[in-house]
Parts: sequence; C-alpha cells; structure tokens
Amino acid sequence: MNDGDFSDDNRWMLPEAVDELLPPRARALELLRRRVLDVYERWGYELIMPPTIEYLDSLLTGTGRDLDLQTFKLTDQLSGRLMGVRADMTPQAARIDAHKLRRNGPVRLCYVGTVLHTRSEGPGQSRNPVQVGAELYGHAGVESDVEIIDLMLETLSVAGVNPPHLDLGHVGIFRALAEEAALGEECETRLFEALQRKARGEVAELLDTVSDADCRARLAALTDLNGGIGVLDQAGEQLRGAGEGVRRELQHLWALASRLENRHPGMTLHFDLAELAGYQFHTGVVFAAYVPGQGRELARGGRYDDIGRVFGRARPATGFSADLKQLLQLGDAASGVSPAAGILAPWSDDPALLGEVRRLRDAGERVVLALPGEPIPEDGLYDRELVEQEGRWRLQPRQ
Amino acid sequence: MNDGDFSDDNRWMLPEAVDELLPPRARALELLRRRVLDVYERWGYELIMPPTIEYLDSLLTGTGRDLDLQTFKLTDQLSGRLMGVRADMTPQAARIDAHKLRRNGPVRLCYVGTVLHTRSEGPGQSRNPVQVGAELYGHAGVESDVEIIDLMLETLSVAGVNPPHLDLGHVGIFRALAEEAALGEECETRLFEALQRKARGEVAELLDTVSDADCRARLAALTDLNGGIGVLDQAGEQLRGAGEGVRRELQHLWALASRLENRHPGMTLHFDLAELAGYQFHTGVVFAAYVPGQGRELARGGRYDDIGRVFGRARPATGFSADLKQLLQLGDAASGVSPAAGILAPWSDDPALLGEVRRLRDAGERVVLALPGEPIPEDGLYDRELVEQEGRWRLQPRQ
Repeated sequence: MNDGDFSDDNRWMLPEAVDELLPPRARALELLRRRVLDVYERWGYELIMPPTIEYLDSLLTGTGRDLDLQTFKLTDQLSGRLMGVRADMTPQAARIDAHKLRRNGPVRLCYVGTVLHTRSEGPGQSRNPVQVGAELYGHAGVESDVEIIDLMLETLSVAGVNPPHLDLGHVGIFRALAEEAALGEECETRLFEALQRKARGEVAELLDTVSDADCRARLAALTDLNGGIGVLDQAGEQLRGAGEGVRRELQHLWALASRLENRHPGMTLHFDLAELAGYQFHTGVVFAAYVPGQGRELARGGRYDDIGRVFGRARPATGFSADLKQLLQLGDAASGVSPAAGILAPWSDDPALLGEVRRLRDAGERVVLALPGEPIPEDGLYDRELVEQEGRWRLQPRQ
Repeated sequence: MNDGDFSDDNRWMLPEAVDELLPPRARALELLRRRVLDVYERWGYELIMPPTIEYLDSLLTGTGRDLDLQTFKLTDQLSGRLMGVRADMTPQAARIDAHKLRRNGPVRLCYVGTVLHTRSEGPGQSRNPVQVGAELYGHAGVESDVEIIDLMLETLSVAGVNPPHLDLGHVGIFRALAEEAALGEECETRLFEALQRKARGEVAELLDTVSDADCRARLAALTDLNGGIGVLDQAGEQLRGAGEGVRRELQHLWALASRLENRHPGMTLHFDLAELAGYQFHTGVVFAAYVPGQGRELARGGRYDDIGRVFGRARPATGFSADLKQLLQLGDAASGVSPAAGILAPWSDDPALLGEVRRLRDAGERVVLALPGEPIPEDGLYDRELVEQEGRWRLQPRQ
C-alpha cells in the first residue's frame, strides 16, 4: 500500500468530473436501468443501441456548435476519417429512424448508454453521464409532446424523484419573431444568447437595428414572459400583432399546457418564452424537469422537427433524455436496493454439493463457495450455510 | 429520400467494423445482459461500472503493447493529460480491487460495458464489442481458476452457446523455461510470437543462441505439446529436468484439468502449452472457449497475478471476458425473445382511460396510445384493444 506516495496514488486517480460506480451502487444503477427500460417497453418504445463512436458527420450534422464543442474527436485508422465519441444519443436515434428503420407513421424509440463530454455542462455534472431517453418520430401534433412529457415524468417517478417542477419554453416562437424582424443570422444568435441570460440591456441594444417598432417590442417582450400559466394570456396580448406562425406556436403551447394540467393536477408548471436552452437543434416546444432547491435539471427535451431535413427525410420529432446516474443520486431508487442475504457453501468437488448449489442459484439465491482460506465476512451478508449431515447437504441458519 | 444519392447515403454509414443494434435485437441483448448479470450476482460477484475513459497511465500500465495499439487516445482538455478509451475492462477491475476497494481476502467483481478497439481483432470482429466478464482477486489456488472457468461456461450456457470446447494453455510454463534458458527480453518476445504460430523453423533458429542443450530441448518441445489430456503426461516427461517453477505450474494445470473433467464430463478439453494468446498481462493458466466450426473464440481469460505489482498491491487474480453481442449472435438467446402482443388504446384525455392504461402497464402489459392519425400495424403486434362501452373502458380482442 502506498497511501503516502502521492505520485502512485495520482496515477490511479480518475480525470476530473469522470466518475465510476462501485458496489453496491453499480447494482442499484443496473436495477434502475431495468425498471426504466421496462417502462419504455410497456409504453411501446423500442430499444436501440447505437454505437459509442461514429463518423463526425453523422453525429454532428444539423446539431449546432454546442454539441461539436462537447464531442471528443478521434481518427479512424481504417479510413483516415474523423470520428466522434457521442456526446448525445438523440442525433443517433434520428439517424436510425431516418436511415435504418425508414418506416411510415409514428416510430417510438428509446435508448440508454454512456455519452462523453469534453467538459462538464455545469458544476458537479459528470463528463461521462449514462444518457437514457425516448424519442417519438413522425407525429407533429401536441399529443406526441404530451406523451413524451408524460414518459419523462414517469421516468422521474420510477427513479423516486418527486415531485418535479416542469419548465416549458418554445424555440419556435422566438424563431418566428426573429424571422418577422428580419434579423441577420449573427444578430439572431447573439439575441438568442442574451435572451437566455435575460440581459435586458443587451437585448435592447441588439434590437436597435430592427426598424419595425412592433417587431422590436414583441422580441423585447420575451424577457418578461415568464411565470405561471397566466404568462400564456400575457403572451397572447403582447404578441397579438405577430404573424400566423407565432400564433400557431402559442396555440400549440397552450394546448400542451392544458393537457398537462389535466393529467398532472399537482405539478407546478413554469413558462418562460425566453428559455431556449438545450442543444441547438430544437425547433418547437422545449421542456425541463427540476426538483425545487436543486439547480440542475433532471431531464430535458423538446421538439426538433428540423433534424429530419438534414437527414434527407423531414420527419417531426420530439423526445427527452436524462442522466441515469444523476437520477440515482437525487432519487430514492438506490435506498431500496440492498443485496439479499446469501448462502455460504464449503469448497468441494462433491457432485451432490455442486448440484444443490446449482438448484439454489437457479431459485434466485446468492450462493458463494468459500475458497480454501477465504475469510468469511461477519457483516450479515451470509445468513445461511450448506452443511453436510448424514451424507446429505442441508441448508442451515449460520451459527 | 435519397436512395440514389451516394454522398448522402455515405454520410450516414457507420465506420467499418462498428455496429449497432436495432429493434428487436437490442431488446434481446438487454435481456441477455440481465440474465448474465443475474447469474454473476447469484455467484457472489459484485457489479462495478468503471468509466469509458481514463488517464492512459491507469488503462495501460503493466498491460503490454497489444492493448496500447488497440486503445484510442484522447487529450483531456481540463488537464492536458492523455486519456484512453478503454479497450479492455480487466485493468479497470484490477485498479478498483487494488485502489478503491482495498479489501483483504478474495474479491469477486463483474462488469459489462462497451469497449472500443482501434482495429478489429480478427475477421468479422466488432470494434465496439460489449465486454462482459468476471474477475476473482486475492486467491492463488487452483480453486479460483476452477470457479472462474465454471462461471465462464455458465455464461455461455445462459447465452445458449453449447457445447463449447475448452482450450487450456499456461503462460507461466513458458516464462519459467525462458528464464532458465536466460533468454534476453527481445528473444523471449520473438520466441513467444513464433511459438504461437507454431513456426518450428523460426523457433529452432531463435533457440540457437541457447547454450544449454536441455533448456533448448524443453523450449522446443512446447510446439508439440498440444492435444488431449495426455499432453500433460507427455509434458511431465519432456520437461522433467526443468526447475521447481515449471513443475509447480504443470501441477497447477493438472489439478485444474482433473477438476474440470470431474465437473464437466462431456466437455472436450484441449491443451496447448505453446498457446499463450490473450493480452500480455497473463502470467499463469490461460483458457478460451470455442464452438467447433467457429474460428473465433467465444470467451477467454486466465490468471494475471502480476498486474497487482504495478498497481502497488500484489494480489493474485484470475478472470474471463466475452463479447455479449457475439454471444447473442452465436447463441440462441435471441430466438426466444419476441415482444409479447400488446394492447391498443385510443388517444384520449379521459382520466378513466388513462387510469386503466396505467393499471395495465403496471401489470406488465405493453399499451400504446394511438396518436391521432397513427396508422395501426396489422402484423399481430397488438392483439387487444381498449374500447368504451356503456361509459366503461373494456379490454377486447382486436377485430
């Protein structure tokens, strides 16, 4: 042991914000994974397992700069082409829907797997989260957003994270207003960022170039359009003069909100029309689940109809994802998981003993054959033992 | 759709020897994963989940050049240090045993996860296998090798790969003979490679430098020491003059073989004292499971006591691993997995319907709420439907 030898200890340290799961937490994560995937199965979502690496083109096309910065790059020695380690499985699911399954009508997919980030997304965030999520392709109506948000909330419930708050925003409203105001691409991007920071002064400055006063006022109004469901009334007022696109998107958000209120009467809904967070591929409603007092979101998602276009097949799409390790950490799923007390057997070549051990294991018991010289832990992990009596192996409580 | 557009299709192709699992195979793999991990749990093996990336030092120290070549390298933007994407989880398990758990006495660990290889290990081999395996630390006796091989065979049995043949070799015998012959490091490495290829001429040439004729004869004999259990008698004869180390290792192999014959009476055992395959960290017995007619091994492992030394804590170690995707492909685990027929429900906001859907899902049924306009597949995936009759929702066979 080299407790005092820093250089040796250092060699075995994990990189910053890279974590691993030891016993018994790894088993707890495994069991949570199963419960979540079984929920998806029962909701009709089919499991896919995309690869950890792909050509960078496939991983990043249409997804924006944020994801590019988060993606580790590798050179493929076989082709010389650049590959990426996935930082998000959503574009992989979209590729599979468009290029592998090629079905008509709605397709429901789910996935779980490690993704890697070059940097933490925020304080305390892992660079190797276990992303779990679901995506619904081929349906543009509000009903698919309702289904996806219901499934996201069910995921949190399975993980014992309760009760979540739900934040709702809408990228499409901002985009439609920006189009009306004929903002240039650069100005739109800067405004997008300023709005998210609610930097009023900066927003006003960026809007100085907009000649139409009404357009300017509607974009500026976004910074104040946040709060309870009343915000949607307020938005109806303040964005009244906007074009058909804005009204349609507001109507979508309204319909979504009323259905969510109906289905989750106790849940706190928060609206923020300047909240455009998430990866840059979202095009419509965006949402995130929080637990009060926890700064970090637990799950997030939204509508990203446009991704279909770059994939050569325009398909509506909505989905969500979460970090399963974070759900394990913040929920109570781990608390119920302690290994059942097991059975000790002596090391032996006796076929009768080996048969009995197999029978017990097949019945779901944990049975350990104590190796010669193996010290037996006295921490209650083994509460029974196999003992030979009159030529037969019998199960007894441990003395 | 751009079927005719090669450049577009090409963009979404996966890199060579990188594969992914679509429905329903992904679900089949998930179920196989669960069955295998549950077996490990019942044998007393604790699950660990090491990270996909680590500092290169941690991943490669003491493991040899093969693994180095197979490992993708990345730069950590936070520390500037070199990281690797794991190509093998065995060294990670050894690190956890030595530096995280630090227990006395035997420790049983298991794991499952994606590893990445810069190149295929052989024709048809995936560069992103799902490695599953188990390791037993802290016990040097033959009993721990027996337990690990038993568990490896049980893994194959769970995957429906039967009946496997077992190849047994012993790196320690070669190492002890090479030490007696005072081969230089370079000569030993070249001899190691020539022996595996059974290149007799090359072996003889390399041995020309060995002055002691007995030492030379014993090393040369290794190329012929392969076949059934009789090979061990033959080895006893031909290596008779060797030192204590060689005799002890032969004795270990003998004891292992007789216990395996006792436990698996129908299994074909093949011995090959020149078979030293596997990663270069093995030090004792090595083994691999095959199915006749399949060139690729299904699982392999061995004893690697030395890895403890470089980890600052010398612990005996033995273990095995396999590619879960390959087991799914070659075994019959996938054939039994077809999704159970599900239930269709109409889209609705009616709390009575939503309550009934929840009840059915909680009971394990797959229930899909058909989105407005969703075409219903007529392929037998849904054999029942929820229908409203006299104000109540009832389950009916589909018409």
